[in-house]
Amino acid sequence: MRMVDLIEKKRDGHALAKDEIQFIINGYTNGEIPDYQMSAFLMAVFYKDMTDEEITTLTLAMANSGEIVDLSSIQGIKVDKHSTGGVGDTTTLILAPLVASVGVSVAKMSGRGLGYTGGTIDKLEAIPGFHVELPDEEFVRLVNESHVAVIGQSGDLAPADKKLYALRDVTATVDSIPLIASSIMSKKIAAGADAIVLDVTTGEGAFMKSIDDARRLAETMVRIGKLANRQTMAVISDMSQPLGEAIGNSLEIVEAIETLQGNGPEDLLEMCYVLGSQMVVLAKKADTLEAARKLLEEALESGEALDKFREMIANQGGDDSIVDHPDQLLTAKYQFDLPAKETGVIQKIVANEIGIAAMKLGAGRATKEAAIDYAVGLKLHKKVGMSVTEGDSLLTIYSNTENIDEVKELLYKNIIVGSFGEEPALIHDIITA
Amino acid sequence: MRMVDLIEKKRDGHALAKDEIQFIINGYTNGEIPDYQMSAFLMAVFYKDMTDEEITTLTLAMANSGEIVDLSSIQGIKVDKHSTGGVGDTTTLILAPLVASVGVSVAKMSGRGLGYTGGTIDKLEAIPGFHVELPDEEFVRLVNESHVAVIGQSGDLAPADKKLYALRDVTATVDSIPLIASSIMSKKIAAGADAIVLDVTTGEGAFMKSIDDARRLAETMVRIGKLANRQTMAVISDMSQPLGEAIGNSLEIVEAIETLQGNGPEDLLEMCYVLGSQMVVLAKKADTLEAARKLLEEALESGEALDKFREMIANQGGDDSIVDHPDQLLTAKYQFDLPAKETGVIQKIVANEIGIAAMKLGAGRATKEAAIDYAVGLKLHKKVGMSVTEGDSLLTIYSNTENIDEVKELLYKNIIVGSFGEEPALIHDIITA
Repeated sequence: MRMVDLIEKKRDGHALAKDEIQFIINGYTNGEIPDYQMSAFLMAVFYKDMTDEEITTLTLAMANSGEIVDLSSIQGIKVDKHSTGGVGDTTTLILAPLVASVGVSVAKMSGRGLGYTGGTIDKLEAIPGFHVELPDEEFVRLVNESHVAVIGQSGDLAPADKKLYALRDVTATVDSIPLIASSIMSKKIAAGADAIVLDVTTGEGAFMKSIDDARRLAETMVRIGKLANRQTMAVISDMSQPLGEAIGNSLEIVEAIETLQGNGPEDLLEMCYVLGSQMVVLAKKADTLEAARKLLEEALESGEALDKFREMIANQGGDDSIVDHPDQLLTAKYQFDLPAKETGVIQKIVANEIGIAAMKLGAGRATKEAAIDYAVGLKLHKKVGMSVTEGDSLLTIYSNTENIDEVKELLYKNIIVGSFGEEPALIHDIITA
Repeated sequence: MRMVDLIEKKRDGHALAKDEIQFIINGYTNGEIPDYQMSAFLMAVFYKDMTDEEITTLTLAMANSGEIVDLSSIQGIKVDKHSTGGVGDTTTLILAPLVASVGVSVAKMSGRGLGYTGGTIDKLEAIPGFHVELPDEEFVRLVNESHVAVIGQSGDLAPADKKLYALRDVTATVDSIPLIASSIMSKKIAAGADAIVLDVTTGEGAFMKSIDDARRLAETMVRIGKLANRQTMAVISDMSQPLGEAIGNSLEIVEAIETLQGNGPEDLLEMCYVLGSQMVVLAKKADTLEAARKLLEEALESGEALDKFREMIANQGGDDSIVDHPDQLLTAKYQFDLPAKETGVIQKIVANEIGIAAMKLGAGRATKEAAIDYAVGLKLHKKVGMSVTEGDSLLTIYSNTENIDEVKELLYKNIIVGSFGEEPALIHDIITA
C-alpha cells in the first residue's frame, strides 16, 4: 500500500477501505507517513468528505493510537459529556455533581483551554487546593465511592488525533465535519466512555457558526458513536450570546455554586437539566427524560447536588468552604461596571467578542504557555431580549488592571442595544441515533 | 502574511494576489514554508484551479527562483520547442537541425528522461563522443556560428519547480492543469526563450489522455505565455499510438537521420514540418506557415538539414560518420521479429504499453539512478490502419537478452489486430494566442 495512491483515491472522491484508513493512521502515528502527505490527504478529505464507515474507522484508529482508559472497574454505565465549546460554558462544573447526586457515575477527564477562558480543569484549579491529577486507582476509587471525579486528560489519549490536530491547524483543514467529528469522538472513546452526550454549540461564540453545520456535525457524531457501539446523542444548543452570566474561571465556579443553590441563571440551569436528563437516561437511572429531570430537580432542590459538589471538592483536596463562602474566590483588584449608553432592548451580545474581552483581561490563554488569571472575567447583568435604561450596568468587569479601555471599547461594540431584541431559543435540536 | 491564511483563501476558491503567490514561492524555495503547508495548498489548487493571472505569476515566480539563462548574445529570436512527452517522440532530434538549416537559432536545453526511453539528451549521448555539457560561452558561440546546439538542462533552472514537482509526485497533485502549465512554462522562460512552440500530446501514450484536457492545458499555456510576453503557440498532437516507428535511443537517432534523408516515417516527418513551420514563423524567417514549410521542405530535399545535423554532431564532439553509416549504432546483440498471429487490420497500438515494453528492454529508466541501454528498443513495421497478414513482422525487437517472453507478451497484448482500423488524425488542433 502506498500513501500517494490513497491520497489519489480520496482526491477522486472514493471511499477508503478499513485497512487503508488504518494504514494511514498507523503510518502517520509512527512517523512513516510524512506530514506533507498527510496534509494533502486532509485537504482532499476537506473537499470530498468521508462516509460514516470511513469516519468510524478513522475515529477508532485514532482512539487506538494510544492508551484506552479502562473504566471497567467502575460499576455501572459510564456516561461522558462533551461540549464543542463556547463562552461562559459552566455546564460541566454543575452537571458533574448534579448527575452524580442521582447515582450516575461521572468519571470525567477534561481538558485545559486555549481561548476565551480556561477549560474545566483550569476552572477547578481556581479552587484552592483542588488536585486535577490523580493516580488511576484513586480516580477509580473516588468514582466508585462518590460517583464523581474530574481529572485532567492524560497526554497519551489518542496521540494520532493530537498530531493530526496540530497539522490541521496550520494547513487550513480544521473546518471539516469528518475531521472534527473523528477528533472529538476518538478522545471520548479513548477516555473509556460507554455512552456519550454531546453538546454541539452553534452561533458566533461556537465553532459551528450555522445551525445547519452544527446539525451535520451532531448527526455525524451520533451515527459514528452508534457504529462504534457507544450510545450517543447530541443537543444542539445556542451560543450566539454567552451561556449564563459569568465568563472567567473563579467567576464560573461561583456561578456553578449559585446554580446548584438554585440561584443561578435560568438558561444555564435549563441547559444542565436538558443535558443531565439525557445522561441519567443513558446511565439507566431513569426510563424517561421526564423522570430523569424530576430526579435532577429534586436533587437540586434538596441540596444533594450542592453537597455532592462539596464532597467532590473535598475528595480532590480542595477547600470546600468556598461552597458556603464563594465570595472569597472573587479576588480581582478592581470591579468596574459598564453602564448602558442608551435606553432600549439588548439586541445582540456577540459571544466570541465577549470571550475575547475576557481573554484580554487574562481569563484565557492566547498561547499554550500563557498563564491564566483565575480572578478576572465578566459578569453579565443583561442578556438578549432584556430591557435596559441608560446608565444601567450591562455587566461587571473583574480586572487586575485599571487600564481596560480597550476591553471596554470591545464590549460596547459587541453588546448592541436597539429598539427590539428577542431571547434566542436555547436548544435548537436534539439528535438521537 | 501567513501561509495558513493563503491556503484557506485558495481552499475557499479565491484568487490569490501577485504578492501572495510570490510569498508562497519565495518562502517555499528558501525553506521557510514547509512541505506540509505547500502540499495542502497544492491540493487546494487541484480542486479550485487558478486564474490565468495567478498561473502567470506562479510561472514567473518559479522561473525567477533560480538562474535565468541569458541568451541575449545570440542574434535573432530564440524559439524553443517543448513536447509534453510521448512514445517514440524523435521530433527534437530532427527539428533542431531542420529549422537551424533555414537560419532559425536553436539554443536548446533539453532534459534526461524518466520513462519509456531516455530524453533527447540521452538519445544524443547514444552518438559516440557527443558532449551534452558545454560551457555557456561555447554554447552561445556554437548557436551564433552554426544556429544550433543542444545541451543538458542546468540544475539551477527553476529550482522552485524542481522542489514542487518532487512534492507533487508523492502527494497526488501532479494532474492539475495550472500546476502542469506553470511547471512547463517556468522552465521554458528560465531557459531564455523569446518564443515557444508547444507540442501537447494526447492519447494513451501521453500525460493528457483526453483531447479536452490537452486542449485546456494548451490554451492555458498559450495564454500565460502571452501574459508573460513570450510568443507562444501549441499543437495538439496524437499520441494514441507511438509517433514514427522507432522507440529506443540509438534507434531514434537512426530514425532521425533517415527522416532527414527523406526516408523516415511519414507521420514523424509531417509532425516536424508542422512544428518546424511554426518555429520558422515565430523566428520571423518566413511570413506565413506555407512559406515556412516550403523553406523546410527545400532544406530537407537539398540535404542541408542533414548536413546541419552532421555539423551539430561534429560541433559537440560526436562522431559524425554515423550520419552516413547509421547502422553502426545498431549494436544490440539480438534482433527478434514479432510475427502477426492473425490476418486483418491494425486496430490499436497502445502507446504507453509499447513504451513500457521498450523500457523493460532497457531503453528507459524506471528510477533516476538506473542506467540506459542505448542499443535496445523497438522498430514498428505496422501502424494503425495498415493491413497485416498472419506471419508478417509487426515489429523488430532489439534486445541484449534472449529472455524476452514477458516483453513479447506485453507487445502482443497491445497491438490489436481486428477487422477494421483507421489511421488517427496526427494533429488534433492548433492553439494560438
